[in-house]
Amino acid sequence: MTNHNYVKIFDTTLRDGEQSPGATMTSAEKLEVAHNLARLGVDIIEAGFPAASPDDLEAVRQIAVEVGNPTSSQNEAKVPVIAGLARANKSDIDKAWEAVQHAKHPRIHTFLATSPIHMKHKLKMDPEEVVQRVSEMVAYAKSFCDDVEFSPEDAGRSDPEFLYVVLGEAIKSGATTLNIPDTVGYTTPDEFYKLIDGIIKNTPGMHEGITVSVHCHDDLGMATANTLAGIRAGARQAEVTINGIGERAGNTSLEEVVMALKTRHPVFNLETGIDTKQISRMSKLVSNYTGMVVQPNKAIVGANAFAHEAGIHQDGMLKHQTTYEIMRPEDVGVNQTKLVLGKHSGRHALRNRLAEMGHSLDEVELDKAFARFKELADRKKVITDLDLEALIADEFYKPRDVYTLHGMQVTCGTMGMPTATVRLRGPDGTIYTQAAIGTGPVDATYKAIDGVVKVRCKLLEFNVHAVTEGIDALGEVSVRIQSENGHTSMDPQSEMEYVRVYGGHGADTDIIVASAKAYINALNKLIIAQTEGSEEKVKNDFGVMLG
Amino acid sequence: MTNHNYVKIFDTTLRDGEQSPGATMTSAEKLEVAHNLARLGVDIIEAGFPAASPDDLEAVRQIAVEVGNPTSSQNEAKVPVIAGLARANKSDIDKAWEAVQHAKHPRIHTFLATSPIHMKHKLKMDPEEVVQRVSEMVAYAKSFCDDVEFSPEDAGRSDPEFLYVVLGEAIKSGATTLNIPDTVGYTTPDEFYKLIDGIIKNTPGMHEGITVSVHCHDDLGMATANTLAGIRAGARQAEVTINGIGERAGNTSLEEVVMALKTRHPVFNLETGIDTKQISRMSKLVSNYTGMVVQPNKAIVGANAFAHEAGIHQDGMLKHQTTYEIMRPEDVGVNQTKLVLGKHSGRHALRNRLAEMGHSLDEVELDKAFARFKELADRKKVITDLDLEALIADEFYKPRDVYTLHGMQVTCGTMGMPTATVRLRGPDGTIYTQAAIGTGPVDATYKAIDGVVKVRCKLLEFNVHAVTEGIDALGEVSVRIQSENGHTSMDPQSEMEYVRVYGGHGADTDIIVASAKAYINALNKLIIAQTEGSEEKVKNDFGVMLG
Repeated sequence: MTNHNYVKIFDTTLRDGEQSPGATMTSAEKLEVAHNLARLGVDIIEAGFPAASPDDLEAVRQIAVEVGNPTSSQNEAKVPVIAGLARANKSDIDKAWEAVQHAKHPRIHTFLATSPIHMKHKLKMDPEEVVQRVSEMVAYAKSFCDDVEFSPEDAGRSDPEFLYVVLGEAIKSGATTLNIPDTVGYTTPDEFYKLIDGIIKNTPGMHEGITVSVHCHDDLGMATANTLAGIRAGARQAEVTINGIGERAGNTSLEEVVMALKTRHPVFNLETGIDTKQISRMSKLVSNYTGMVVQPNKAIVGANAFAHEAGIHQDGMLKHQTTYEIMRPEDVGVNQTKLVLGKHSGRHALRNRLAEMGHSLDEVELDKAFARFKELADRKKVITDLDLEALIADEFYKPRDVYTLHGMQVTCGTMGMPTATVRLRGPDGTIYTQAAIGTGPVDATYKAIDGVVKVRCKLLEFNVHAVTEGIDALGEVSVRIQSENGHTSMDPQSEMEYVRVYGGHGADTDIIVASAKAYINALNKLIIAQTEGSEEKVKNDFGVMLG
Repeated sequence: MTNHNYVKIFDTTLRDGEQSPGATMTSAEKLEVAHNLARLGVDIIEAGFPAASPDDLEAVRQIAVEVGNPTSSQNEAKVPVIAGLARANKSDIDKAWEAVQHAKHPRIHTFLATSPIHMKHKLKMDPEEVVQRVSEMVAYAKSFCDDVEFSPEDAGRSDPEFLYVVLGEAIKSGATTLNIPDTVGYTTPDEFYKLIDGIIKNTPGMHEGITVSVHCHDDLGMATANTLAGIRAGARQAEVTINGIGERAGNTSLEEVVMALKTRHPVFNLETGIDTKQISRMSKLVSNYTGMVVQPNKAIVGANAFAHEAGIHQDGMLKHQTTYEIMRPEDVGVNQTKLVLGKHSGRHALRNRLAEMGHSLDEVELDKAFARFKELADRKKVITDLDLEALIADEFYKPRDVYTLHGMQVTCGTMGMPTATVRLRGPDGTIYTQAAIGTGPVDATYKAIDGVVKVRCKLLEFNVHAVTEGIDALGEVSVRIQSENGHTSMDPQSEMEYVRVYGGHGADTDIIVASAKAYINALNKLIIAQTEGSEEKVKNDFGVMLG
């Protein structure tokens, strides 16, 4: 099998990451993340699970078209592979191919469980049937696409001897990548090393053209160590997500694997194609879009990860830099995003800065962004890249507006009853005004909005953080809501239906205004999902509902 | 050396954890955390670094007295060891002993760096001098205390042969625990296994009475895997923190190590003394007091860690519980803390619930707590344990009040200029009222407070989260501020001076009121630290300043 000194980075932020509760992104956000993953240098982007819904298929197709093809400024060799996930059945594989075929380098990724517990309780299939199905479905995928990846789900708890048989059949049927997932985050690095080593040595037909891949989960906190153990054993593809987001305790973190390989290069002697200087920015982008906060003590990308740099009061006698530092913050792009623009910066400067950050806006969009920028610059002395990212996210990467905030005023404090008045523009253009009192200003605001929007939902989570330091900072609010009428979505692996959770975010120097925007943003996502994206349906259902 | 099937859990949340930027706790908070660590079942509590300041010494002494001695209801065998950290010099060791001697089982933990880079650049000592110093200082600590732990700092980057010599001398001089730190989070599990294995096999004088310990950092995301590798090699003490807090990317997480040993018991065949059902509550307590948020995808204690439990829409055909679950949420105490008290619950019910949660309040405190509880119950239908923890933290575990909030009112929104009026009671009892406008309601509030308090500081971080689900939830605000006049504290290892960061938190259903409380809380900590805790000094300095 492939065993050179290059490890392919397979990013599944948009599939396994986006599947985690509350991390739902809009199609526009997914596309933006995909563009940035390509810039970061990942080799494969798993763009989604097209069989989940027509919207999911369309999002993957759009990424295949726009990110999976070379642009004039791009080296063709650096165009990422675009992968779509499919269960081992024809319908899923058809949909995956329908979505990814538009990419220069498409991949179909199909999977079937191989652990006794999954075969018995989930699949209700005999081992022989599993082997048969894998053989047929890999061959079916291969009939469309040269690049086929197969994963024996729950490999970490599967019988290795059985895995050799299944994987041998997959090779015979045309799989070019064999991905070994520790689906439930159960193994230790020793066990995982042995598993990968055994697979490489014992799978019939293993040859130079096959890439062995690893896919770990962090339930016991060992995803990174397991991934590196698999790589040491000979795997040459790592499946990872930005910030390690993903179901339960999440997937392996891209940033941890990449920086471990780089920092301990003499031990591993392996390369990746990642431009590590983009890691910090990428981490913030994904955290903003998914609403999944990064804890300060998160390796590589946490606010404290390089705290020895910040706030040091050098005491003269010190110090050799590496005494307490094994990585330099510059290596992951920390501290590169300071002071950029001020009140007097012009449209041209803004356009340039946004272009450097990877946002190419058209003239109309730039006008909007510039207006927002000037408005912010009036209130805040220094505008940093983080402010711009928040502003761009707030202005552009939100679902098509169903309801928009036209104005609000709030009174609160210890002395009276918190009261909010909101003015919203509805999908039919009507302006609605509503006042409400609540236990606090956010409660009052949300009740006022509920008075207009009338969608029954439950607030699951509410978080605010300051985008930058300083009292005048922009506040960014993330919320997660759940529809009370039980709108669900399917997890491709467990095939369980989940009550769908929608995240929303909003940014403003007034955190109550940001809270209103975030809530409206989440409500809009929920409304669009419930009406399956049909503009007519939005108007009718909710126009009527409002009537 | 000790090699039975029991792994001692050495918790350093109060030392290595508290040292991380912004995690500063008050003495009252430290004491409360120590009480809870004892209830959780940790074997050793490292309560602090007494040489850092008289306040730190006093906090460790208080923990030694109150948590380090059996109470009537307690099994004497379960009284934890109370450890104090000391650099390898007489003055530090004297102070550590002064603080820990009051405990039933005191321990002095001393350390000296052994890596070439640290010896050369930090210590400026020859290897021979290092050996000599270790020998002298371990013997000096032993002259006070039977239980002496020695750590060769930066062992992960030290020459193993040199470590054997140093550790052999430490044994000869009376050390009973040899702790091997991967200070900079540099090693891989294989390397760390080999290091510990080599130490156990090659250190002269290694015997049954010696416990080998491991202390890992998470800079490359491998702290848990490294700790378990060390344990597999024969270490029988793990140094950990709750939520993995600590400098930079933090220390090894207690919850990950304990749950990995439990979940994979057939592999490790090892026990700990931890009551795992308390893990979830303990995680929230430490997160609240330190202001260090836990990301949703954090293993074991993240909000999503057991997401397969929440929001599942069982689809009938399913499902064997362990298909996707290797741990049960009940095992770490998740879901045990639901609905507890409502509007009509009485004082007695509150007292009982708080006692079950480990808070034993006296009558006066209970009166205060009950008043707060009734106030909250008027605004919020259901009061959960999380609400009670937030309320208790807000009411009792804050520094002695220098300034207190007496009232406030705020107006904000998109239509006008956000304006806040605050009324504060100063240290001399005077009531101050101040209004200010700002870029948002929090900015306006903080400017109004600054107008009264007049301490120059910088807001580093601002976070709000909802304590429970639902729109009427209690909002909890965490802030971190830094004094602008550069008040510093010393890191015992690097001996670098840091500009000290103070965290504050506040809870209220009105997040702007909670924001005001959090800021005043942090300012009070800063003022107390700057006046070195003298009540007189607070009054004079700030009374005058305010005049």
